[in-house]
Amino acid sequence: MAERKRGLRKLGDTSFAPGSATATPRASADIRCLLAALPGPDEGAAARVAAREAVLTKPAGALGRLEELTAWLAAWQGRASPEAGRIAARIFAGNHGVAARGVSAFPAEVTRQMVGNFEAGGAAVSQLCGEFGVELRVCALDLDRPTVDLTVAPAMSEVEFLAAFATGFDQVQPGIDLLCLGEMGIGNTTAAAALACSLFGGLPAAWTGSGTGVSAERLAVKRAAVADAVQRHRDAAEDALDLLRRLGGRELAAIAGAVLSARLRRVPVLLDGFVCTAAAAPLAALAPGALDHCRVAHVSAEPGHRLLLRHLGQRPLLALDMRLGEASGAVLAVALVRAAVACHTGMATFASAGVNNRDAG
Amino acid sequence: MAERKRGLRKLGDTSFAPGSATATPRASADIRCLLAALPGPDEGAAARVAAREAVLTKPAGALGRLEELTAWLAAWQGRASPEAGRIAARIFAGNHGVAARGVSAFPAEVTRQMVGNFEAGGAAVSQLCGEFGVELRVCALDLDRPTVDLTVAPAMSEVEFLAAFATGFDQVQPGIDLLCLGEMGIGNTTAAAALACSLFGGLPAAWTGSGTGVSAERLAVKRAAVADAVQRHRDAAEDALDLLRRLGGRELAAIAGAVLSARLRRVPVLLDGFVCTAAAAPLAALAPGALDHCRVAHVSAEPGHRLLLRHLGQRPLLALDMRLGEASGAVLAVALVRAAVACHTGMATFASAGVNNRDAG
Repeated sequence: MAERKRGLRKLGDTSFAPGSATATPRASADIRCLLAALPGPDEGAAARVAAREAVLTKPAGALGRLEELTAWLAAWQGRASPEAGRIAARIFAGNHGVAARGVSAFPAEVTRQMVGNFEAGGAAVSQLCGEFGVELRVCALDLDRPTVDLTVAPAMSEVEFLAAFATGFDQVQPGIDLLCLGEMGIGNTTAAAALACSLFGGLPAAWTGSGTGVSAERLAVKRAAVADAVQRHRDAAEDALDLLRRLGGRELAAIAGAVLSARLRRVPVLLDGFVCTAAAAPLAALAPGALDHCRVAHVSAEPGHRLLLRHLGQRPLLALDMRLGEASGAVLAVALVRAAVACHTGMATFASAGVNNRDAG
Repeated sequence: MAERKRGLRKLGDTSFAPGSATATPRASADIRCLLAALPGPDEGAAARVAAREAVLTKPAGALGRLEELTAWLAAWQGRASPEAGRIAARIFAGNHGVAARGVSAFPAEVTRQMVGNFEAGGAAVSQLCGEFGVELRVCALDLDRPTVDLTVAPAMSEVEFLAAFATGFDQVQPGIDLLCLGEMGIGNTTAAAALACSLFGGLPAAWTGSGTGVSAERLAVKRAAVADAVQRHRDAAEDALDLLRRLGGRELAAIAGAVLSARLRRVPVLLDGFVCTAAAAPLAALAPGALDHCRVAHVSAEPGHRLLLRHLGQRPLLALDMRLGEASGAVLAVALVRAAVACHTGMATFASAGVNNRDAG
């Protein structure tokens, strides 16, 4: 695990004291305040899960990461018997000024067209949500106002950033057992690469992949844009939250807001691919452990994702060479969570099934 | 990819001419005859799938291995539009004389107890089949007559082997869209390790893992048993089918029969973990490409599995540290197949959704 490049800015000097624990933060100081006092896992629930796991009719540990998923779900839901009944997917969509530089293989209007496609049920994630019984909602964020080109100025003003963050924060309703997060935004792998590079260091080119599948020529343009952006905003590099505002795009800010909100509401989160993970990364840079209630659903074919996962200490659940975004990997991993919960809650015990447990050796 | 240790014995000298293409083989010569003339994939169906894939609303290749699964399913089903409606799981259970040596952490009666647990719905695979809508059938093979201890003599006579093979062969009914195979048998990772080592060479210890989770002391006993078995049957090592009879156990022979039968009936197969893959491996040793209609669902935590996959040129779909057997990994991977088919058949095209395809660059 590589060390984080930058030190953490001190948190929690402000005094955001919301009426409820889940009041929407309206200032960067509010976000920092929440991050400074995040709720932890429910160790009692985790212990109850471990005790049951030990008597189910299988050799100890034989369900591997499914058992890990069950324990994680219980600990963050705060339930001794984890549930996976109501699963929600939220896709945030935004447009990026940097797209005008030709960093994507697709024109910028595709962002809006795909939002229509999600809603009409024609996208991959629509099909996956149908297959796995996941409730899908799409949040289009000011698509007719692309963010500023991040290679020349901050992508968002403070007001724009907070509005996007709050939109994401407010998308997490009570009663959700598990939240899948994803994004859509032509040009946003450029933003994600610039953000990840600024947070964790390394060469801009190492963080920059072919995204939707750009030509070698466009990849060179994209790499130059990432390098320019990192350079342009290097004076903000001590502050992960400000980097998210400067480089992130609205859908990335919204994802960060949803991740924080989910933590406060005890909703475990499945993060999707490179862009989604990059959007959540500033929270981890500000508060170690801020993503402990999240699992990264899959490792994307986008090369920066693997790098990012190493920095975050996250081991992806799936590795299927997917690189679509739109929460597709997260919703696919729902199958693993449902499987884990079904086994844990439905299996017989050695005693109830009359099966001998292991003998002496 | 390591080379296979042994040359192939010549096939197809006999003349098994069944009334239908799927008559049950009654002699080793019948099996060899079928293997010598295996049907291939439907290239037309694969081409139709590729043509549709190219116009669905996603960047080319962005669904990664899900696209590969769709193409594989179509080619082996022989359908331009692959289906995943009726999915069947077959678990074969057998008892092993070698279990008396203390190679497992569980007593031999657990095989029969677990068969009861599968049928009662209390096992992991029962829960997984319920979750993913997979029809489960368990085939107990002469559990009150364990095979002979493979360290001292062939595990099965020719008659016993053919009966087990035929039982598996006959378990594949028409109308199944996808077949999941798995096994249960206390002591069968010992058999699988001896079989794989005899087929592909290498050190017995490299093929031998802790199975259900044996102590270091039992692992030493198990390694010695594998080494003894390999040594004992080295004179048969030129003939993969005879190795299966000598080392395999009834459930392994049945799995091989089911794999062959599925190929003839155009039913794609998901293989489970180490034992299941080892059971199918002799077919590949006898006829290269004999497992092309199979995908290995997951890589087991049992170390020999990874080695075996390299020899077979199979890339597993999942890697979740599972090591349970009983088709659990195969049924879990059904979710990926269902997801792949849902996306391929249900997604909108660029034209139908009014989404721009990639532009010039």
